Amino acid sequence: MGGDHAPREVVRGALEAARTYPELRLLLVGRPDEVLEEVDLVGGKASSIEVVPAEHVIGMGDSPVEALRRKKGSSIEVATRLVRTGDAAAMISAGNTGACVAAGTILLGLLPGVRRAGIAVCLQAGAHSVVVIDVGANISSKPEHLIQYGIMAGLYARSVLRLENPRVGLLNIGEENEKGNSLVKSTNAMFRKTRLNFQGNIEGVEIFRGVCDVVVCDGFVGNIVLKVSEGLAEQLVDLIRGTVEQVLRSLPARATSVLEGAAIPAVTFGESESSDPVALLERRLRAAFVSMREKIDYAEYGGAPLLGVNGVMIIAHGRSDAKAIASAVRVAKRMVETDIKRHITEEIHALMEQA
Amino acid sequence: MGGDHAPREVVRGALEAARTYPELRLLLVGRPDEVLEEVDLVGGKASSIEVVPAEHVIGMGDSPVEALRRKKGSSIEVATRLVRTGDAAAMISAGNTGACVAAGTILLGLLPGVRRAGIAVCLQAGAHSVVVIDVGANISSKPEHLIQYGIMAGLYARSVLRLENPRVGLLNIGEENEKGNSLVKSTNAMFRKTRLNFQGNIEGVEIFRGVCDVVVCDGFVGNIVLKVSEGLAEQLVDLIRGTVEQVLRSLPARATSVLEGAAIPAVTFGESESSDPVALLERRLRAAFVSMREKIDYAEYGGAPLLGVNGVMIIAHGRSDAKAIASAVRVAKRMVETDIKRHITEEIHALMEQA
Repeated sequence: MGGDHAPREVVRGALEAARTYPELRLLLVGRPDEVLEEVDLVGGKASSIEVVPAEHVIGMGDSPVEALRRKKGSSIEVATRLVRTGDAAAMISAGNTGACVAAGTILLGLLPGVRRAGIAVCLQAGAHSVVVIDVGANISSKPEHLIQYGIMAGLYARSVLRLENPRVGLLNIGEENEKGNSLVKSTNAMFRKTRLNFQGNIEGVEIFRGVCDVVVCDGFVGNIVLKVSEGLAEQLVDLIRGTVEQVLRSLPARATSVLEGAAIPAVTFGESESSDPVALLERRLRAAFVSMREKIDYAEYGGAPLLGVNGVMIIAHGRSDAKAIASAVRVAKRMVETDIKRHITEEIHALMEQA
Repeated sequence: MGGDHAPREVVRGALEAARTYPELRLLLVGRPDEVLEEVDLVGGKASSIEVVPAEHVIGMGDSPVEALRRKKGSSIEVATRLVRTGDAAAMISAGNTGACVAAGTILLGLLPGVRRAGIAVCLQAGAHSVVVIDVGANISSKPEHLIQYGIMAGLYARSVLRLENPRVGLLNIGEENEKGNSLVKSTNAMFRKTRLNFQGNIEGVEIFRGVCDVVVCDGFVGNIVLKVSEGLAEQLVDLIRGTVEQVLRSLPARATSVLEGAAIPAVTFGESESSDPVALLERRLRAAFVSMREKIDYAEYGGAPLLGVNGVMIIAHGRSDAKAIASAVRVAKRMVETDIKRHITEEIHALMEQA
C-alpha cells in the first residue's frame, strides 16, 4: 500500500515477478478491495498470488514509530509479522522508510551480535555498481556499527552482485588514514584490523569510479549522498536533454530541409519510424535518455535491504514502478536463497571472536 | 605555485584578469624564474603585474599545518602575509586546501566574534546557483558555527550573486524540524530564532533544485557532497556522451550514406564545417558537452572563499585553468569592493547582541 504509485505499481510488479518466478508464492498485503481491483485490471489473480488483509496504511509523512504504535494492523506491520512468523521468507515495501526500519528492528529484532541495522543501496553510474551502507537507518553511528556495516554489505554484494571478495572502502574527506572526523578515524583503524578486503578511505569523487564495491558511512552522510546523487542526476539528465534538443533545433534551416527531403526506409525500428533522419536521431536520443535515467535510478536495482535484522526486508524507493518492484522480488529471492542471514550471523560472530 | 597546472594556468589566468581589470595590481607569488618563464611565454609582463619571490612550495599531499611550520616562506604563506600586512587586498591559491585554511586562520586570524572559518562554494546545475558552506574547513561543527556559516555565506551570496535576501537552508535528511542528528536539530532551532531568511531543513535531492541560495552543513558532510557531485557529474557527462555517440553511430547505413551525399553549405559556423549534417550535429553536440562540463564545474564560479578570516582568501580547485583563476580574481575583487569583511563583522556582532 505504500509509495507514490501504490497499490497499482506494487501489484503489477508482484504479478510480473510471479510470472518470472512461478515457484514463488507472493503475498500482497493491504486493503483487499484496492489490491484485488488492481489485480483484476491486469488480468486476474494467478494461483501463486494471495491477498493478506491489512486495514491501515502508514503515510509517507507519518512519524514512523508513532505510526506503528497507533496504526495497529498497517500493511507494513502485517507484512513484517509474516516474516517474523515464518509465513513469508521476505518482505518488500515501497512505503515509509522510517516505519520499515522501526518494524524491522522492533518486530524482527536484530541478528545475534548485530548492533544496528543498516540500509544498503546499490548505486550505479556508468559501468560500475557500488553498495553504499548506511543510507539512513542509523544517524548516530559508532565505529563498531560501521565495521558491522562493512561486513554485512560485503555479504550482500557477494550474494546479489556475486562478487567473490568485495572491496570495502570508508567514505572520508581524504585518502590518508589520519584524515576525517573522530568517527571515521577510529573506524579506519578498526577496519584495518579486520579480515575484510578493506581499501582504506575513499573520497566522494571516487564513489562512482568503481574503486570499491562497498562504501561505508554514517546514515546521515549516506542519506545525503544518496539524495544529492538523485537530485544531481535528475538535473543533469534534464540539462543534457535540453542541450541536445537545442543542438538539434540549431541545425541550419537549409540542412533540415535537405534532410527532410531524404527518404530513408524504416528498416530497423519498425512501426512509425519517420523518413526524416534528424527526427529518427531525435527519437533515438530520447529513447537513450529514458534508458539512461533507468540506469542511474537505483530503484531499478532491487530496492534497499535493511541488513542486520532477523529476516529479509527490502525497502523500495517511494517512486518505484512495477519493474523496480519485480526487481526487488528478484533481490529478495536471491538473499533468501543464499541464506544471507546465516552468513551475517557467522561473520559477525567471527568478528567478535577476533576482538 | 599550487594546483595541478601551476604555475602555467595560474599565471595565464592572472594575466587574463590583468587585461580585464587594468585598474588591479596583481602580485604573482612564487619562484621568480618559473613564474617569469610563464609570463614570457604568454607575451611578457604587463606593468600591473609584479612577481613576489617565494622559495618553497607546499605540495598537494603535504600535511597542512606541518608544511606551514616546516616550509617557511612557501608561496601560500608569503601570499597570505601580503594580505595580513595590507600589501594585498586578497589572496588566491589553487594549492593545498588545508594549508590555505591553516594559513588563513593562523596568519590572518578570525574576524571579531567569528568562531570558525568556513569554505563556501558556489555550485551550479542547470539554471540554479547555490552556495554550500562548509565544504571542509571545519569537520566538527557546533550549532553556533553553522549559524555563523549561514550568516557569512548569505553575505557572500549578496556580494557575489547579488541576491537581496538570500534564502538559507540547513542540509538534513528530512524536511521536518525534528529530523536529523543532534547537531542539525539544535542548529535548526537556533536558525529559527535568527533574522536570516531561513527556509528550514532541505534534503539532498533539493540542493540543485533552486529552493535555497545558501545551504549550510558541517564540513565533513559538505566536502563529501561536493566531491560526490563532482564525481557523479563526471560519470554522467561521460555516460551521456557515450550514449549520444552510440546513437549517432547507430543510424542505419543507408541513412548515413544519404546524409553524406547531402551537401550543405557551411553558412553559420565558418571554417571547417563539413557538409555532412550528421558530422555537423556531432560536432555541435561535442561543443555543447564541453560547455556543459564548464557549467557544472564549480571552478568556473570563482573558487571557494574561506569566510570568517580577517582578509579575502580564495581557494581555487586544484585543477583550475586560466579561466577559473581569472574568475577567482573577479570574485575576490567583488568581495573587496563590497567590503564583505565589514559586513560579516557587523552581522556577527548583531547576532551576538540578539543572543
